[in-house]
Amino acid sequence: MSSQNTAVDKRQKFESIYPDFVNDIMGYLKSINIPKDVAQWYEKNLYHNTLGGKYNRGLSVIDTYEILLGKPLDEEAYKKASVLGWSIELLQAFFLVADDMMDASQTRRGQPCWYLMPNVGNIAINDAFMLESAIYFLIKKYFRQDPYYVDLLELFHDVTFQTELGQQLDLLTAPEDHVDLSKFSLEKHSFIVIYKTAFYSFYLPVALAMYLAGIASKENLQIASDILLPLGKYFQVQDDYLDCYGDPNITGKVGTDILDNKCSWLINVALAKASPEQRAILDKNYGVKNHECEAQVKTVFEELKIRDEFANYEESEVSEIKKRIESVNESGGLKKSVFLTFLGKIYKRNK
Amino acid sequence: MSSQNTAVDKRQKFESIYPDFVNDIMGYLKSINIPKDVAQWYEKNLYHNTLGGKYNRGLSVIDTYEILLGKPLDEEAYKKASVLGWSIELLQAFFLVADDMMDASQTRRGQPCWYLMPNVGNIAINDAFMLESAIYFLIKKYFRQDPYYVDLLELFHDVTFQTELGQQLDLLTAPEDHVDLSKFSLEKHSFIVIYKTAFYSFYLPVALAMYLAGIASKENLQIASDILLPLGKYFQVQDDYLDCYGDPNITGKVGTDILDNKCSWLINVALAKASPEQRAILDKNYGVKNHECEAQVKTVFEELKIRDEFANYEESEVSEIKKRIESVNESGGLKKSVFLTFLGKIYKRNK
Repeated sequence: MSSQNTAVDKRQKFESIYPDFVNDIMGYLKSINIPKDVAQWYEKNLYHNTLGGKYNRGLSVIDTYEILLGKPLDEEAYKKASVLGWSIELLQAFFLVADDMMDASQTRRGQPCWYLMPNVGNIAINDAFMLESAIYFLIKKYFRQDPYYVDLLELFHDVTFQTELGQQLDLLTAPEDHVDLSKFSLEKHSFIVIYKTAFYSFYLPVALAMYLAGIASKENLQIASDILLPLGKYFQVQDDYLDCYGDPNITGKVGTDILDNKCSWLINVALAKASPEQRAILDKNYGVKNHECEAQVKTVFEELKIRDEFANYEESEVSEIKKRIESVNESGGLKKSVFLTFLGKIYKRNK
Repeated sequence: MSSQNTAVDKRQKFESIYPDFVNDIMGYLKSINIPKDVAQWYEKNLYHNTLGGKYNRGLSVIDTYEILLGKPLDEEAYKKASVLGWSIELLQAFFLVADDMMDASQTRRGQPCWYLMPNVGNIAINDAFMLESAIYFLIKKYFRQDPYYVDLLELFHDVTFQTELGQQLDLLTAPEDHVDLSKFSLEKHSFIVIYKTAFYSFYLPVALAMYLAGIASKENLQIASDILLPLGKYFQVQDDYLDCYGDPNITGKVGTDILDNKCSWLINVALAKASPEQRAILDKNYGVKNHECEAQVKTVFEELKIRDEFANYEESEVSEIKKRIESVNESGGLKKSVFLTFLGKIYKRNK
């Protein structure tokens, strides 16, 4: 079986266990005799907003746990890991339902955004809340007896808060309808990508797997964080790069960061390097929903050799991350291969 | 000092401790070097959406704790009780910011709703999330060392979920823009008021005080729930009654439940008793934003003697609640006076 097939199988297995968890929740609703229309609505919410993605975050919990254990997961271990994997997917769903409303997005994973579905509208706000509540319902059901139960709750609280802080900084720094490049900076960019994305997408799945494997000491968590947050930042910088320079035939999407006034890594590097004349061009054209303006910005990017800047950043960042991975002390149960696997998946990716 | 003054003092003391908690959060933001505009925005969010109400829920934690202890709280006990009191107020703020968006409300406590404040709009969704996150930040800071820490977290999770379920049933049963009285029933009304209001407004403050006082056994919590949920329902039925029959000079507001298609106790009793002719009038006129239609509905209410129905409900419900309070076994640390105080505050209230 090719590794491609294995990846597909893993995804399918992960997806096929999700109805068990939805049914756990439906069983609870039945036990409190809630009117049926609530259960039906909630069920639709729980499926529409979680299914159809790549499940990278959820699958990372399972993959990492397997690496840490050094053997395939038995059925019970798989189930517990998938509860936590799906909890991250639910956390992401909670954020994305809200993000799509705040960004007035139209589609998500090829389907209409939840708030645009028939009869939903602003009810989607309460639906987002209920996606979050599903997390704590499931963790309570499956982990209440475990000594690290309270740590799981705290970890989800902390990461939720961090993600919200990153989202807030992003909303304040780069509102789509009001361009002000003086608000941008590489420091803010770094804060946004680490808080808004890296904590829940990179640190959280590994930290959860570490609890499952019983190696989540304070020291080990710190080591993981010191590697995974920069890695998550690197991933997001790649995302920004691919938005502008990726091949749409490979990435599957045409970038809109310049049109949408996004606080992307590229514009921040450009702002740091631009001459007053170039700065004036950026101020005039960035975030304007017009392809001529977009082209002007891209011309300045070329003049400033932003691609070379990215290549330099990538090499130095990856070399620093590798150094940190090399220095991991494995005697406490952590394994370098956890991090090398992550790095291998994203290094020089083109989609 | 009159009891009126004491109530004012209590409220002021409770309000004056809140900046300590906001400052705890601001201190954390400073420690992670988050850009200043985020801190300023969050601070505004934390004040605008919590201050200016009566703090009934928050103060109930303190009052109940004092009754259970049987003596005034010392400074440390007051601080811990007020963390939990303010956590309920933050939970309410989280719900209300969202409710106001879902209901397209204009004002709240005499101020513009948060989402209508300058530059807020849909960012209010993330702001609501951050009000919720403040709860877990504060509980972690002040209760992490306590043996009942995990119980507090679960209690907030459970009650949050219950409130969201009640809100969802309400949204599905009584959308403002689509009247369908066949969706209404007394059973749904009961579910809505207990889940949407009674858990967080009546059960939660007492349960929290019981944890503080060290008497939150499963049995005691069940007793409290068996009394406080019916009490909370009774409170909400009063609210529905006062919306229609209260004196605006006393309540301070003119009711709009009939105009707004609210799933109120009055319409549900009317539906249960109405003749086919009266039902037709209700179907035609309920939820129509027109005072002539509202008057037609009120005429049917009079024909059906809804006021008498309320008086009967009140007497039988209060007598049942009193019976339950009488049967409370105080040997496990619970006190009847906790519940009698609640009942005394709301029995036959006219505002």
